[in-house]
Amino acid sequence: MAKEPKKLDDLFHDTLKDIYYAEKKILTALPKMAKAARAEELKAAFEKHRTETEGQVERLEQVFELIGKKAQGKTCDAIVGIVEEGQEVMKEYKGSPALDPGLLAAAQAVEHYEISRYGTLKTWAGELGLHEAVSLLDATLQEEKNTDATLTKIAETVVNQQAA
Amino acid sequence: MAKEPKKLDDLFHDTLKDIYYAEKKILTALPKMAKAARAEELKAAFEKHRTETEGQVERLEQVFELIGKKAQGKTCDAIVGIVEEGQEVMKEYKGSPALDPGLLAAAQAVEHYEISRYGTLKTWAGELGLHEAVSLLDATLQEEKNTDATLTKIAETVVNQQAA
Repeated sequence: MAKEPKKLDDLFHDTLKDIYYAEKKILTALPKMAKAARAEELKAAFEKHRTETEGQVERLEQVFELIGKKAQGKTCDAIVGIVEEGQEVMKEYKGSPALDPGLLAAAQAVEHYEISRYGTLKTWAGELGLHEAVSLLDATLQEEKNTDATLTKIAETVVNQQAA
Repeated sequence: MAKEPKKLDDLFHDTLKDIYYAEKKILTALPKMAKAARAEELKAAFEKHRTETEGQVERLEQVFELIGKKAQGKTCDAIVGIVEEGQEVMKEYKGSPALDPGLLAAAQAVEHYEISRYGTLKTWAGELGLHEAVSLLDATLQEEKNTDATLTKIAETVVNQQAA
């Protein structure tokens, strides 16, 4: 017998597990990035984002609750790859003036992955009539966009200073 | 003896190889996504983006030339992971009304990865005084942003239609 085809609510649930795994991964990567960063403002940005990420994990747990599912992650190959690239930069550029630009680039790749995922999830939550989930996902989406903008600003000044 | 520390121009070159590999990977993924898509407008968007991607590969080759390096890729774990996730969606949601939303989400994750990489490369090219490279990278950055906006528009209508 043919399996019942998966629908938008399944896709929403699968993608929620994907980003939940990603956020937990990011939570372990950020302290390493903060420790590696040379510029104080970059260290501070990574530390601030770590605290924010804890709140984002909690919001995801609330969304799982709203759809009556247990909060659980599912390996997200994308974030594994992105974080892997960041670790490579940390290793290869240790002691180099290009370390901070490299860390910034890695962090911005992470932010953009999250922006795409939260944008998608927010749209789907709207389609599924999960209005409370829309608000939760949008709150995180705005935080990620702000973090990306902060990193861009730091990128421009840090890179300027170090390339000068 | 300690190795000469890598600098911003090395990071620029490394990241150029990363995105060059990524673009070539995307070039092989897009026809599969176009074939899998159900909605005509989505098929068309993937096909159009395939043509654009060819132009983006050429621009990258020009940037390699500008810095006097051979155009070559270096495995980019991030894009491997992102494309892998897209292929999983194609398999798991085959025949489902949620296939197109899933393909769109995968494509938007790709676009956001590219937006972050081209934004970074453009900033670094500016710092390195590679003005011609700035223009080339910016042209692609704008295309990627436009593609993302088109996909968002399609996501909203396609998802609406299918969820209705």
